[in-house]
Amino acid sequence: MTRRLVIIGGDAAGMSAAAQARRMKTVDELEIVAFERTSRTSYAACGLPYLVGGIVTSPDSLIARTPEQHRAKGIDVRTRHEVTAIDVKGSAVTVRDLDAGLESTVHFDELLIGTGASGLWPRWPGIDAKGVLQLRTLDDAAEVERWLVAGARRAVVVGAGYIGLEVAEGLLKRGLHVTVVERLDAPMGAVLDADMATDVAGAMRAAGIDLRLGTAVTGFTVIDGRVATVETAAGAVTGAVEADIVVIGLGVRANAELARAAGIGVGESGGIHVDDRLRTDQPHIWAAGDCVESRHRMTGQSVVVALGTHANKQGRVVGTNIAGGNAAFGGVLGTAITRFQDLEIARTGLTEKEAAAAGFDAIGVTTEASTRAQYYPGAQPMKVKVVVERGSGLLLGAQIVGGADAGKRIDVLATALWNRMTVAEVAGMDLSYAPPFSSVWDPVLLAAGKAAAMI
Amino acid sequence: MTRRLVIIGGDAAGMSAAAQARRMKTVDELEIVAFERTSRTSYAACGLPYLVGGIVTSPDSLIARTPEQHRAKGIDVRTRHEVTAIDVKGSAVTVRDLDAGLESTVHFDELLIGTGASGLWPRWPGIDAKGVLQLRTLDDAAEVERWLVAGARRAVVVGAGYIGLEVAEGLLKRGLHVTVVERLDAPMGAVLDADMATDVAGAMRAAGIDLRLGTAVTGFTVIDGRVATVETAAGAVTGAVEADIVVIGLGVRANAELARAAGIGVGESGGIHVDDRLRTDQPHIWAAGDCVESRHRMTGQSVVVALGTHANKQGRVVGTNIAGGNAAFGGVLGTAITRFQDLEIARTGLTEKEAAAAGFDAIGVTTEASTRAQYYPGAQPMKVKVVVERGSGLLLGAQIVGGADAGKRIDVLATALWNRMTVAEVAGMDLSYAPPFSSVWDPVLLAAGKAAAMI
Repeated sequence: MTRRLVIIGGDAAGMSAAAQARRMKTVDELEIVAFERTSRTSYAACGLPYLVGGIVTSPDSLIARTPEQHRAKGIDVRTRHEVTAIDVKGSAVTVRDLDAGLESTVHFDELLIGTGASGLWPRWPGIDAKGVLQLRTLDDAAEVERWLVAGARRAVVVGAGYIGLEVAEGLLKRGLHVTVVERLDAPMGAVLDADMATDVAGAMRAAGIDLRLGTAVTGFTVIDGRVATVETAAGAVTGAVEADIVVIGLGVRANAELARAAGIGVGESGGIHVDDRLRTDQPHIWAAGDCVESRHRMTGQSVVVALGTHANKQGRVVGTNIAGGNAAFGGVLGTAITRFQDLEIARTGLTEKEAAAAGFDAIGVTTEASTRAQYYPGAQPMKVKVVVERGSGLLLGAQIVGGADAGKRIDVLATALWNRMTVAEVAGMDLSYAPPFSSVWDPVLLAAGKAAAMI
Repeated sequence: MTRRLVIIGGDAAGMSAAAQARRMKTVDELEIVAFERTSRTSYAACGLPYLVGGIVTSPDSLIARTPEQHRAKGIDVRTRHEVTAIDVKGSAVTVRDLDAGLESTVHFDELLIGTGASGLWPRWPGIDAKGVLQLRTLDDAAEVERWLVAGARRAVVVGAGYIGLEVAEGLLKRGLHVTVVERLDAPMGAVLDADMATDVAGAMRAAGIDLRLGTAVTGFTVIDGRVATVETAAGAVTGAVEADIVVIGLGVRANAELARAAGIGVGESGGIHVDDRLRTDQPHIWAAGDCVESRHRMTGQSVVVALGTHANKQGRVVGTNIAGGNAAFGGVLGTAITRFQDLEIARTGLTEKEAAAAGFDAIGVTTEASTRAQYYPGAQPMKVKVVVERGSGLLLGAQIVGGADAGKRIDVLATALWNRMTVAEVAGMDLSYAPPFSSVWDPVLLAAGKAAAMI
């Protein structure tokens, strides 16, 4: 008999799972129905800032696979359909056809929740004014584009995390005057230690960004329904920044309401709780992607890390399991990379601050290195910070800030973390060397060696 | 009482060891005397092809540390001094002062042999003619430069390995007509599988190199003491290539004669045999760098891998041990990287061919990927080949050939090899992702995932 897999959410996690399950099961064995409330599936949200900046020129190029392409693979994708409720006992979902306005009930044998995450949107006075935007979807990007074409000249970006940094770069590239307002004392304050963030702040200011650190947004003044200024407070000092557009880039929270309302377990992190095979606390209900919490391999704690790379991996794992296979998601290290103009920024594992908060007796050791042999043209300075457990020498985390070709070296340290290596072990590894690619002591080895000598 | 460490050879291994021992022991505790037969210490031989090509413009920039700089650190460097014999029982070496022509005997408490390697120089008829060169030292580079300045227009490079490839690129850049003669059927034939080498051959030919594969050199015709043609044989077909200069780039052999003559153990690989702490079979005699054999971590076999990165690491290990510490060299994976113009070439562990020769039941799986998100400008194609043990899925080796930013990703696979990961484990790792740096499935994860699905 044909069983039915229902998927809620047609983006990375949901559609990866669908594709994987379809590889393993025929249409006769497993019917796959995916409900997506927007009109699009499987697009690269991470590319949106580059679309705004004009580096990527075609919105269509961000679409990995259209609904039609999924359908051609035997996946019944229904766009503009929103699942409004899950009936756990009855093994059914309530679905609203957003165009027709009709509601129906659809039975499932297996259910996958891939509802993603939403951008944080604080209840600041005036936040719903025209011109206050976010950048989570292709429609959001089109909206930003409309404002730019209409002549917006002054932009305020709220938040100096990944999205804030990337959007600020894009808007700057489009010729706007850009102010970035950040509550913390450093850009990337949630992902880098303060000493590593200094170079990022320097690069932003050198590029012409008005970077306001330690500054909270308190609200917006609105004129004729449009945002006019961003009201700020830095300690006791209040201020205002004129803005034609404001982009809120404050991170995300998991979309777990649907699961919670159905009585499915949600963790303290705010993400849906799943086991290593990505099953929820209900036997035939699974969850994957930005809406779930994952195990951090260095702390053992549950965290929500909303990244396409996890969503894709989790989709494949859960698709395998739903199709009767056996796969596990190995957890996360918090590895991430971005860049601001020519400055590459990457991290993995725990920062010094995070390590302390997790109860480790840890030290941070920063090494200045070069992306190529010093004598080779184009060599760029780079800094590698490693965070190490005192005594054991266990590598707990790493951060890299530097010029071209610096950032991706974080993956070597992520691989070392994944294998729970000590810095002494890392320092002894056989990494590649030639003058156009590194100094004879590769920056990663150099950093690990320096740390090993200090603990 | 002050003990004396004598070092034979003042390049990477010897001088790294000296520096490390000096960090740990004062001048009163340990006297360090290093004998070097040339007039230079510690220079970056790997940079020589880029000096020839004019990418690196100053020979001095390749000198990491001069004899004077070493002396200022309390290391007694004696250049133009050649050690001609080791008296193991008497704990002494015979040293010839090459300028004064005097021989003396110097006692040691500890001896480090760091005699390096020599370029292979086959006994082909005519090989000692003027214009037949190699590129192992700064003097060699100066000699090549003299021939170029004197008007050499046609160059033949013998061997299409790392050095051959890099020298060919350099000479091409200098405007010469370049022929590369290679005995094997592919460039990089000793380090890449044939399928991966195809792109290298293509790039060489596209750049204008006359690449003659499957072609052996049989000798040289010499006119007035100068090389005139390179005589070749491809199967039964003989030929000749006109040449103003010939550069021999055929790899190296360990300089182990001095050790062998003293009765110190030399392995079948031709390298001096050492334990993990880099001690020879004599209690107070150590060896490090290109002259020793190392344990290959994937096969357990002893191999000679002449690379500056190992020489530096081994120097630090042996310096630590001589100074009374305890360090071990962890072995090699055969990791290496180079590039030909815009094409990056890297490898680690075993090729498919090497894995079969070592007795593994292995398969090779090649994946086509992209260095950036497909939609991001500048994305370059890259190929990743992984070699995997059938059944267990143990990663045995990897090769990468591709555009800018492709090559250094080999270090992630080297780290995975170092930790004996399976491809399924590799595919699940948390590597960094952002559109300017990789596709959402990083090429390494993609390659591992594809292989995991096939074994």
